[in-house]
Amino acid sequence: MSKFLSNLYSALEPYTPGEQPKDKAYIKLNTNESPFSPSPKVVEAISTEVINDLNLYPDPEVSLLRDALAENFGVNRENIFVGNGSDDVIAFSIMAFCGRGGSLACPDITYGFYPVYAELFGVNLTEVPLRDDFSVKVEDYKSFNCPVIIANPNAPTGLMLSLEEVETLINQNPNRLVIMDEAYMDFGKASAAELTKKYNNLMVIQTFSKSRSLAGLRVGFAVANAEIIRDLETMRFSFNPYNINSITMRAATAAIKDSAYYDNCINKIIDNREYSKAELTKMGFKVLNSKSNFIFASHPEYSAKALYEELKNRGILVRYFSKERIKDFVRITVGSKEQMQAVVNEIKDILKG
Amino acid sequence: MSKFLSNLYSALEPYTPGEQPKDKAYIKLNTNESPFSPSPKVVEAISTEVINDLNLYPDPEVSLLRDALAENFGVNRENIFVGNGSDDVIAFSIMAFCGRGGSLACPDITYGFYPVYAELFGVNLTEVPLRDDFSVKVEDYKSFNCPVIIANPNAPTGLMLSLEEVETLINQNPNRLVIMDEAYMDFGKASAAELTKKYNNLMVIQTFSKSRSLAGLRVGFAVANAEIIRDLETMRFSFNPYNINSITMRAATAAIKDSAYYDNCINKIIDNREYSKAELTKMGFKVLNSKSNFIFASHPEYSAKALYEELKNRGILVRYFSKERIKDFVRITVGSKEQMQAVVNEIKDILKG
Repeated sequence: MSKFLSNLYSALEPYTPGEQPKDKAYIKLNTNESPFSPSPKVVEAISTEVINDLNLYPDPEVSLLRDALAENFGVNRENIFVGNGSDDVIAFSIMAFCGRGGSLACPDITYGFYPVYAELFGVNLTEVPLRDDFSVKVEDYKSFNCPVIIANPNAPTGLMLSLEEVETLINQNPNRLVIMDEAYMDFGKASAAELTKKYNNLMVIQTFSKSRSLAGLRVGFAVANAEIIRDLETMRFSFNPYNINSITMRAATAAIKDSAYYDNCINKIIDNREYSKAELTKMGFKVLNSKSNFIFASHPEYSAKALYEELKNRGILVRYFSKERIKDFVRITVGSKEQMQAVVNEIKDILKG
Repeated sequence: MSKFLSNLYSALEPYTPGEQPKDKAYIKLNTNESPFSPSPKVVEAISTEVINDLNLYPDPEVSLLRDALAENFGVNRENIFVGNGSDDVIAFSIMAFCGRGGSLACPDITYGFYPVYAELFGVNLTEVPLRDDFSVKVEDYKSFNCPVIIANPNAPTGLMLSLEEVETLINQNPNRLVIMDEAYMDFGKASAAELTKKYNNLMVIQTFSKSRSLAGLRVGFAVANAEIIRDLETMRFSFNPYNINSITMRAATAAIKDSAYYDNCINKIIDNREYSKAELTKMGFKVLNSKSNFIFASHPEYSAKALYEELKNRGILVRYFSKERIKDFVRITVGSKEQMQAVVNEIKDILKG
């Protein structure tokens, strides 16, 4: 820390992204990426003409992409906000709707970036414990008047609230903002996006990083009523109005329009998830009922940390969290069928040994 | 403003980007873009292989690009910070080194985003008046102990501090951070980047948007000592660790390595600038001695606002600012020789009429 850094940040501990070791080639099942390349339409969209026009600023309204997303969700452009990855969208949201001195509530076990944002923006965070079965119970949020952010499906558990439960949460308090972080929702197929037409205290955030095979492109977005989106636009135009570059806008627009390609990818990943859940269950694992593109599993006789390390030795990366409540679990991203067969076979072999 | 927006932002007025009207094709000389396409190496760098790998997250360390920039400036990777456009870098810098309740000083006439950041982050901004000839005088900053940010060359005047003046500014107070925003410095050729090796209270910010013909790609960067860069990395990893996408990293790396191509573009723009300054002077304009890729000029007998409007009618976009001290000036981006001949001829015709 230099002598120039504001002491507001003296306790700030940045987010730790999943490891990306370069010492050898790994089967990478640690950051919830898609095993599939993006749609061929994405390759087409990044034309030489688009690249040659990069001397010009991008469209700060991100019109093409917002219109394509609006069409996809049956809303209007004014209901769509686009960010440089969904982290960008979450950051602007917490900054806007909590702000220094404000408050936020979220589960105690969830996406690890929420507490980092709370610290960065000086927001008082209440972490509401998950129930013993790792489920979120919406009644536990009833007394909170501050904004609530819930990852649904939750990470790293993969457990999902039903649409009815989400609606109950929204209805608890019409003067409270509910932010549903649906990064993994395409694998759960119960998005609350439709409810943004009915409720003005709901924001739904999604990403192109998982189901749309575009983690490397950085696109996330929010769906909400026009007033909330206008607030987010106020923040974006006060921080970085050109946050989406011209290539990203074209590529993401092409992706959102090729739903046939992505539906096929999503269905394959769901199949591979169910296959892997069944195989791990047969081996004695406790496997949470994930509705995402990852599996959260714990073995009664084999340490999760040791399993993570042994898999890494064998060239397979999964994710391990040392946090007390979940230190007996590994999180395994659902990859291709071949990748999942490989990880299942290696785990079988490790447990035998 | 929705009922959910924090009242911290009730006075926030977002930045207004240059207009991008779509009603007809304009000669666009209003946002200081380069008239030249990016290097052909940029097209090559955005290969089908790179696009097909977009399912994977980008390198959060942005290693390739930081190494290429480090080589370019004769520093190390730890001395380079990369942002999603230089706005991103400026935002993180003001957030980090001022912070809510902190202070910042800058000229009263300068890049219009600084006051927006001050308001967004709750920073007390002192706007130090330019002298009557629109110059920045470093002695006017002597008494400030808070961070100082100076655009050099300044916008929209184009006037530049010499390296000696910048060194005087740095030496005024070793415990004060000096941020030199060198967005236009490739056209002035007096960068203070080299001084970051000698002084640990200096940060130099540059961009790929102007001289590198990549406004549409969004890349900016800072050069500074390792401690300052580490602070900026703390902010970035607490806000958006993947702020640079994979394509952007590859394309910008290719650009920084093709200095021959860009040196040629820069020299052409400088030639066109000097041609245009001479022509406007002949027509009776007061033309500031711009060292950037734009010209700031005022005619004693023709209203700047009317000139802006008449040029727009004739299909040429320039920029007009209604701010009191500069309301008699237009800012004209230096484009290709053909574009500058066109704008010179139209202005001649307008003045005749």
